[in-house]
Amino acid sequence: MDQRPIAVFDSGLGGLTVVRSLRERLPAEDIVYFGDTARVPYGTKTPDTVMRFSREISAFLMRMNPKCIVAACNTASAVCLPRLGEDVPVPMVGVVTPGAASAVETTRPGDLVAVIGTEATIASNAYRNAIHAIDSTRSVVQVACPLFVPIVEEGVYASDPIVRMAVDRYLAPLRRLKPTAVLLGCTHYPMIRTAIAEYLGASVALIDSGDATADEVGDTLRRSGALSDLASAGSLHCYVSDHPRRFQTVGSHFLGSSIPDVVRVCSEELARGADALSSRPRASA
Amino acid sequence: MDQRPIAVFDSGLGGLTVVRSLRERLPAEDIVYFGDTARVPYGTKTPDTVMRFSREISAFLMRMNPKCIVAACNTASAVCLPRLGEDVPVPMVGVVTPGAASAVETTRPGDLVAVIGTEATIASNAYRNAIHAIDSTRSVVQVACPLFVPIVEEGVYASDPIVRMAVDRYLAPLRRLKPTAVLLGCTHYPMIRTAIAEYLGASVALIDSGDATADEVGDTLRRSGALSDLASAGSLHCYVSDHPRRFQTVGSHFLGSSIPDVVRVCSEELARGADALSSRPRASA
Repeated sequence: MDQRPIAVFDSGLGGLTVVRSLRERLPAEDIVYFGDTARVPYGTKTPDTVMRFSREISAFLMRMNPKCIVAACNTASAVCLPRLGEDVPVPMVGVVTPGAASAVETTRPGDLVAVIGTEATIASNAYRNAIHAIDSTRSVVQVACPLFVPIVEEGVYASDPIVRMAVDRYLAPLRRLKPTAVLLGCTHYPMIRTAIAEYLGASVALIDSGDATADEVGDTLRRSGALSDLASAGSLHCYVSDHPRRFQTVGSHFLGSSIPDVVRVCSEELARGADALSSRPRASA
Repeated sequence: MDQRPIAVFDSGLGGLTVVRSLRERLPAEDIVYFGDTARVPYGTKTPDTVMRFSREISAFLMRMNPKCIVAACNTASAVCLPRLGEDVPVPMVGVVTPGAASAVETTRPGDLVAVIGTEATIASNAYRNAIHAIDSTRSVVQVACPLFVPIVEEGVYASDPIVRMAVDRYLAPLRRLKPTAVLLGCTHYPMIRTAIAEYLGASVALIDSGDATADEVGDTLRRSGALSDLASAGSLHCYVSDHPRRFQTVGSHFLGSSIPDVVRVCSEELARGADALSSRPRASA
């Protein structure tokens, strides 16, 4: 039994959908969350910038003595893993591998799987490679949807006409291709899941990488006997690099409940701490 | 006569519309431009984060030995000026005061002026305060349009249906209020000027802060005898904190011509240089 917290990070608010999935499955676990709201979004930025930011955040989270770190950001998972995980002395779980595994489980040989995500996630081919590493019999088509994140970050959700227009803008090719499953390769996309489902029709399965990741975190902790044995509900402490107020307001929709405790950490402070990661001795997980 | 370059900065691409205006008016001037593409956008972030980023960039630009610095970012101008200008040993020109002056010149006592901009610009009340500091007889209404920047940054312009929908989303109250003038309080907005003009109708004057700022820079340099006397066309050198390629591709639409020379500067490097600003001796402008 291990009472240390699960650490989760994202470029901003999106990872709170993964926190929601984690709390549904593992209600006794303490969670610390970092959202890089001063530098959001990551999805339009280059891999080495995203790697640098993710290293800084991982070093910061290590100060919280977590039992594992969840890269709840699809862009960070796609471009930083497994390399970043090798520098961190606790297990690091990304959203790409669990999401890819879920896509394979949901489909059959010869089926078409569509992956939708940010420009950086799609350009990395991480989901396609992860699906083919598990099973090469699925065809994979990938579509970048750059405006979904800003639309959702503004707090605009499924019933809004601008959401329907953006869905039509990016997903029209998928409506024609009729994939068996569409993998929501961005933690923001569950917030507009209803609009995507209505547009693509009931025959298309929508796969949420966040749900699959929460399952994977539970399995990882269970295998190593590291689940918490507390009977009470776990705590949630959030850290952001900007805007505690906005994070609390819009974030509560992502989390599905209020966010009482948000602390601001200056991203200058993060940059100073990043060197600590490489000089840290490797502990066994 | 002063051959030193004019330095211009913005959170990303938007300031290139100001560079375009500068080059039309002052073709002999050398220009150095910094776009903070690793941390864009600024308009959804808090004033102290925007101040920190802007200080770092100003310190970086001072290494280029400029004769003045143009804060071509409305958000940075609105939240950092005049304070930041006091720490910089050359004249600093923002976009807010020239834009406000242009709005007053374009209207008459009792007229209604509408200001549109990012959340941070609107929350700062900088345009309203600047207009009223010049002339308190104008009524000012302010509207934040958070999705305009991501839409334009994606390279989507005036004729696109999603632009028309976003325009309708934010500007419907203005169509009812019928202001005499609408001040485009963001350097991205000139890219969707046509859509805004069509929506609001020909009776509404659209004021581009960028044009007014370029006029102000010319006047400032002329007054101090600091215009370049070169007969050849001035150079343009661009620096960005991420993505030279994207900056070149999308940026060429903002600039109205190709961008040959873009150098990447890591934002970690920027942060290290920021302390130099406060310790620098004050020179006379």
